[in-house]
Amino acid sequence: MYRTHTCGELRLADASKKVTLAGWVQRVRKLGGMTFIDLRDRYGVTQLTVNEKTPENIRLAAEKLGREFVLQAEGVVVERASKNGKIPTGEVEISLLELRVLSAAEVPPFTIEDESDGGEELRAKYRYLDLRRNPVKNALILRHRVAQEARKYLDAQNFLEIETPFLIKSTPEGARDFVVPSRLHHGEFYALPQSPQTFKQLLMVAGYDRYFQIVRCFRDEDLRADRQPEFTQIDCEMAFVEREDILQTFGGMMQRLFRHVLGVEFDNIPRMTYADAMRDYGCDKPDVRFGMKIKELTPQVQGKGFAVFDSAAYVGGICAEGCAGYTRKQLDELTEWVKRPQIGAKGLAYIRLAEDGLKSSIDKFYAPEELQQVAATLGAKPGDLILILSGNEKQTLNALCELRLEMGARLGLRRRGEFAPLWVVDFPLLDWDDEAQRFYAMHHPFTSPQPDDLSLFMSGDREALKTVRADAYDFVMNGVELGGGSIRIFDAAIQQQMFKVLGFTPEDAGYKFGFLTNAFKFGAPPHGGIAFGFDRLCSMFGGSDSIRDYIAFPKNNAARDTMIDSPSHIDDTQLKELGIDIAGKSE
Amino acid sequence: MYRTHTCGELRLADASKKVTLAGWVQRVRKLGGMTFIDLRDRYGVTQLTVNEKTPENIRLAAEKLGREFVLQAEGVVVERASKNGKIPTGEVEISLLELRVLSAAEVPPFTIEDESDGGEELRAKYRYLDLRRNPVKNALILRHRVAQEARKYLDAQNFLEIETPFLIKSTPEGARDFVVPSRLHHGEFYALPQSPQTFKQLLMVAGYDRYFQIVRCFRDEDLRADRQPEFTQIDCEMAFVEREDILQTFGGMMQRLFRHVLGVEFDNIPRMTYADAMRDYGCDKPDVRFGMKIKELTPQVQGKGFAVFDSAAYVGGICAEGCAGYTRKQLDELTEWVKRPQIGAKGLAYIRLAEDGLKSSIDKFYAPEELQQVAATLGAKPGDLILILSGNEKQTLNALCELRLEMGARLGLRRRGEFAPLWVVDFPLLDWDDEAQRFYAMHHPFTSPQPDDLSLFMSGDREALKTVRADAYDFVMNGVELGGGSIRIFDAAIQQQMFKVLGFTPEDAGYKFGFLTNAFKFGAPPHGGIAFGFDRLCSMFGGSDSIRDYIAFPKNNAARDTMIDSPSHIDDTQLKELGIDIAGKSE
Repeated sequence: MYRTHTCGELRLADASKKVTLAGWVQRVRKLGGMTFIDLRDRYGVTQLTVNEKTPENIRLAAEKLGREFVLQAEGVVVERASKNGKIPTGEVEISLLELRVLSAAEVPPFTIEDESDGGEELRAKYRYLDLRRNPVKNALILRHRVAQEARKYLDAQNFLEIETPFLIKSTPEGARDFVVPSRLHHGEFYALPQSPQTFKQLLMVAGYDRYFQIVRCFRDEDLRADRQPEFTQIDCEMAFVEREDILQTFGGMMQRLFRHVLGVEFDNIPRMTYADAMRDYGCDKPDVRFGMKIKELTPQVQGKGFAVFDSAAYVGGICAEGCAGYTRKQLDELTEWVKRPQIGAKGLAYIRLAEDGLKSSIDKFYAPEELQQVAATLGAKPGDLILILSGNEKQTLNALCELRLEMGARLGLRRRGEFAPLWVVDFPLLDWDDEAQRFYAMHHPFTSPQPDDLSLFMSGDREALKTVRADAYDFVMNGVELGGGSIRIFDAAIQQQMFKVLGFTPEDAGYKFGFLTNAFKFGAPPHGGIAFGFDRLCSMFGGSDSIRDYIAFPKNNAARDTMIDSPSHIDDTQLKELGIDIAGKSE
Repeated sequence: MYRTHTCGELRLADASKKVTLAGWVQRVRKLGGMTFIDLRDRYGVTQLTVNEKTPENIRLAAEKLGREFVLQAEGVVVERASKNGKIPTGEVEISLLELRVLSAAEVPPFTIEDESDGGEELRAKYRYLDLRRNPVKNALILRHRVAQEARKYLDAQNFLEIETPFLIKSTPEGARDFVVPSRLHHGEFYALPQSPQTFKQLLMVAGYDRYFQIVRCFRDEDLRADRQPEFTQIDCEMAFVEREDILQTFGGMMQRLFRHVLGVEFDNIPRMTYADAMRDYGCDKPDVRFGMKIKELTPQVQGKGFAVFDSAAYVGGICAEGCAGYTRKQLDELTEWVKRPQIGAKGLAYIRLAEDGLKSSIDKFYAPEELQQVAATLGAKPGDLILILSGNEKQTLNALCELRLEMGARLGLRRRGEFAPLWVVDFPLLDWDDEAQRFYAMHHPFTSPQPDDLSLFMSGDREALKTVRADAYDFVMNGVELGGGSIRIFDAAIQQQMFKVLGFTPEDAGYKFGFLTNAFKFGAPPHGGIAFGFDRLCSMFGGSDSIRDYIAFPKNNAARDTMIDSPSHIDDTQLKELGIDIAGKSE
């Protein structure tokens, strides 16, 4: 071992001990005849001191140190003259007796500090240096902690961690599969799993009862800022359960994780139907840290001669408490904000409940009493500001959702460190695509209809199908979907009906999922499960919006790892061995 | 929840409780007016009873049950008239009140019993049914246990579990990489990791100190019986350590795993040099549960006129205790055994130390005293049998190793349940390929030479290089290599020398490993690590020779998953999206 202690553990009680530390030079400061070296390792920083009593050769060696040199340092723990209350080791320093440079360092391309001067691209290219910074290190330590706690909980609940294969078969959502050409079977491919969905269901059929895995999944999609081509899930499945069992078990897991990792307690995880969430919050993952619910105003405001509202399928508003003082300029800016393409509203109507009476952008169409009634509907009181959007129902609700979140943020209602968990339940089973004239699965093709809606589902009637609810649920925290799952179909006939409704030919369904539907013929138990996005969960614990900070070696928005320069070309010999050609490549 | 209890937990103390169980029908037996149904779940088997008091509808339903039907059964726990001492629930049975068939089952294609009538191929195709059998279930439960215990130990030792990427870059051992075409970057590929080697080293450079991961790795090789294209490693790395620290830490892990999983204690893990292992056991992973060491006889037996030995580079023997009674037929059979291509010996000489004196296949060339001297060298005593092989040194030692293991097995010296751990150390750093006239890395190109041999290594002299020892170590148990690792090079100059010795051009080395050698320029700590083959480790714990039993969904010898029928064809749209063609495919 190159050290007797870490750089994070020495205290005043260790004074006069002879110790050996090893780590990286954080900084070197000279002060008169003294030199102070901050030595850093994973556990902290300890100050090494060179003074007039230090042996000459050490004094000379200390002269040549630069940032990020790796040292082994021997010395005596002494009490500091001027203590540093900001770090746990701040009462002591090491008076150097020996100093060995284990590894010199070139000047790093950016500063290794909590706030670095390096831009995102530079830090990505030198990720191994970025990983030295405390915020990144703490994120990965947190991730480790969350993983261990999740495992402890699930192990204690009799779940078995069972590894499922990574080299599997391309599925109907195949366009997003990463594929792997087979060298032994030319022209054939494995696919990397988008999730272990079918395998965990097979494990239930095989009698394993309670399965989990913290597992990498892969999806080859055009990337958004917060998506990675590979991501990690806490993937779980249980047999002989109903929805209630799943919500209890995994609500319990979230409670334990928040308690053990953050010291945050929540006793009760409220539930909300999808319909209520859409109506009151305009989306299926509401941030319920604050109210400001959306209210529909359509009947109330129509027929009064305001063409914009009269022609709208939906009119709805929110009430921003205490915002009546918003200036014209602020309101114009908010109007521009809702008109951005990401939000997509056509305009913004407002009613200010100012002290000197109502002021509204629509007061030429509405009598004061009518505006008062709108205010009453929204529960607004003097001093509040009402914001109203109108248009197509889906888009308007979506815009109101965004506007509500924005106003919540501006009003400081989305507080860090406050956690509002929620189960959203009763999702629709199917999503009708008017253009393609077909249904898509809201969740995936193995999700069971709710028992009450089963006969509607089996009827196959299009209008009936649109109303069928799924036995599905999402775990939402502070407006972020952290997990989702469903009770599965375990009856071969219902599964066949699902494939039919989704427009799979029997051949297609058989080719892609034959092994699963066949398995159901040999005795399948009722089962259901859930998967949590582990990267997102960790970023929620860490209070960050970016999952990339919580991944040791993330890829960029172009799915590229700039540190190792991947993806990259492979040589022709290898292509030949694999039996593939690059399309359009001249020989 | 579909049940109040599992099928493994009811005891006599539960008598008269009303319970609900759920599970699979293991078997149905009729006896007079009674029907006995063995209901099975992951936890055990409980007997359900239908008798003359059972409601008529239940009696009728029970008539129609078949093997592997999934039931929900309600009833009262009663004491059995005829108890079954073989199972923990054998004192009770459930007198049925309600019976619900959750899922009917077709007759399974093989019996779901500890010893199935299904062949390997059939069981692979219906793996979800094979997984229902106790031996497979117990193997996976054991695997779960080993994984949890390993994590607990490493977490307690301050190791951080850090996930490394799966979509990486093809490496020089690239021929064995699985590659993944990039849809976003046509003509470019990711590679799946053969191990997280470079990433774990980067984590050490990044200051993470103690890393581990239980992680899938991929190798596209022509398969042998016990190899899988995807396999799992317990992958670990430590910084600021020397070999001794690694051996202590991971010896400790193995001690803990054997103690907690099997209740087996071993205090001390002996160490053996590679040279000693090769000399005494003919291989680098000796089974030291028994002695029967190989002794070289070359000088002793040469120059006596026996051309076979005189022309051999190496002559060596073993002594099989108490085998002097081997008949001519047995010896002939053993001779055939060593002549098989897998062993490759040309013939077998023997000396029987029978009660009535020495008998030998070579006594026309050697005087009795000379044979006595050979016997003395081998420490043979009356009643023993000496077996001698000769030829090329490497092949002969290899054949003697196999012969020793075979004789050990025949003599019952390789006892199941007995565990003999061993660290093999001081491996050669490089392997000289006479044909290709080049060196290969014995371990991998990041393995450090031993400190004492560093100047030899830097000299670059071919003969000197052949003698350089690596700072590498293997963990061996009962003749099986369970893990291996090394202290790594952390000095850029030594790493460059290694690439040079291995014949990489600077461009090649830069292209493939530039990110690692660059990282070393910014302050790299001394570090080293180890990886354990997790599938193999679990099979060792389970007392099985086949790793496939310990993998939930293994692939066959042709790297194929016959259950899901993978690898498989993908459609032309997908190929086009990926920018690749199948070589030689007519359009």
